[in-house]
Amino acid sequence: MSEPRFITFEGIDGSGKSTQARRFASYLEGQGREVVLTREPGGSSGAEDIRALLLTGDPGRWSAETEILLFTAARRDHLEKTIHPALAAGKIVVSDRFADSTRVYQGATRGDLRAMVDSLHALMIGREPDLTFIIDMDPETALTRGLARKSGEDRFEDFGLAFQETLRHGFLALARANPDRCVLIDGNRTEDQIASEIAAHL
Amino acid sequence: MSEPRFITFEGIDGSGKSTQARRFASYLEGQGREVVLTREPGGSSGAEDIRALLLTGDPGRWSAETEILLFTAARRDHLEKTIHPALAAGKIVVSDRFADSTRVYQGATRGDLRAMVDSLHALMIGREPDLTFIIDMDPETALTRGLARKSGEDRFEDFGLAFQETLRHGFLALARANPDRCVLIDGNRTEDQIASEIAAHL
Repeated sequence: MSEPRFITFEGIDGSGKSTQARRFASYLEGQGREVVLTREPGGSSGAEDIRALLLTGDPGRWSAETEILLFTAARRDHLEKTIHPALAAGKIVVSDRFADSTRVYQGATRGDLRAMVDSLHALMIGREPDLTFIIDMDPETALTRGLARKSGEDRFEDFGLAFQETLRHGFLALARANPDRCVLIDGNRTEDQIASEIAAHL
Repeated sequence: MSEPRFITFEGIDGSGKSTQARRFASYLEGQGREVVLTREPGGSSGAEDIRALLLTGDPGRWSAETEILLFTAARRDHLEKTIHPALAAGKIVVSDRFADSTRVYQGATRGDLRAMVDSLHALMIGREPDLTFIIDMDPETALTRGLARKSGEDRFEDFGLAFQETLRHGFLALARANPDRCVLIDGNRTEDQIASEIAAHL
């Protein structure tokens, strides 16, 4: 594989993926690389506005189908305004979540929607990351962490432990189905141990 | 054809379609029918929030592709929260704009996107109106009317006369391509004359 330039971090809320994405970006900068650290939903000015529509308000505000359309709109804006320009300028892009989150979260909520998610992705996004770190961890620990930093953007965390278990299995299945770009990372260790293992992959 | 229950009004800005949609809804109510008068973009609480993202701010804020996704998200919400429940309750739905507007406006901005608009519609919306009135009128007159009531929601009107001419031809082509549900109405007459012709169609 040529050098991975578009790298994503995935996992359930509270898995430590945001921390690891940040640490990995710093590590790359320490190696003299230009890095753009970004996140989804959001990652561009327009996508952040769509994020606000998605993550606040009544949990039943949007149907699963409308939610998928809004996530895809935000992703398209993120890709056009942040990811593509950075890659074109020779930078490395590190994103905290990308399309895999939609596949797993929306698939967990309504299994029958996975085909719709895939069709929309093929039609409107197309691009996959070069490399994806999936941080796997015990959902009970992850949920406790997630609730401890309640931010108002808690629509998914409110679904509880059973939902987190379903998500975890969704991410594990995704890693198995995409071994070419996905690396499964055991998140039940110290931050430093996890960061070292991730850095060793480049 | 069985009685049309989902009826839309289409045409360029300033063509008088909103006025005619309102008058037609009143006419049907006068006939003892229960009518829901709605509009796009918008027509439901969530869709109105998406409308605000779409119609305000810098005209270059969204790419054509992201815009199509946002219009489709708003339409899906409008369909689920307003149109389907009203039809299920036996009411008549009169909508000021629906999917035809996206076909014509986005097709006029970027002709190569029409296939994308159609694929998204097939995947996420599906439903067509039973009957569509396309109000056709001289773009110069329509543009003057549109500018006279500038509302801040002027992203498309700002594109000027040549753009309105392109849109007019887009709506005419749409009427020709869908004779089963589209009725072309000459908008270059008095409000009363137009309203009478429309009422005569039921």
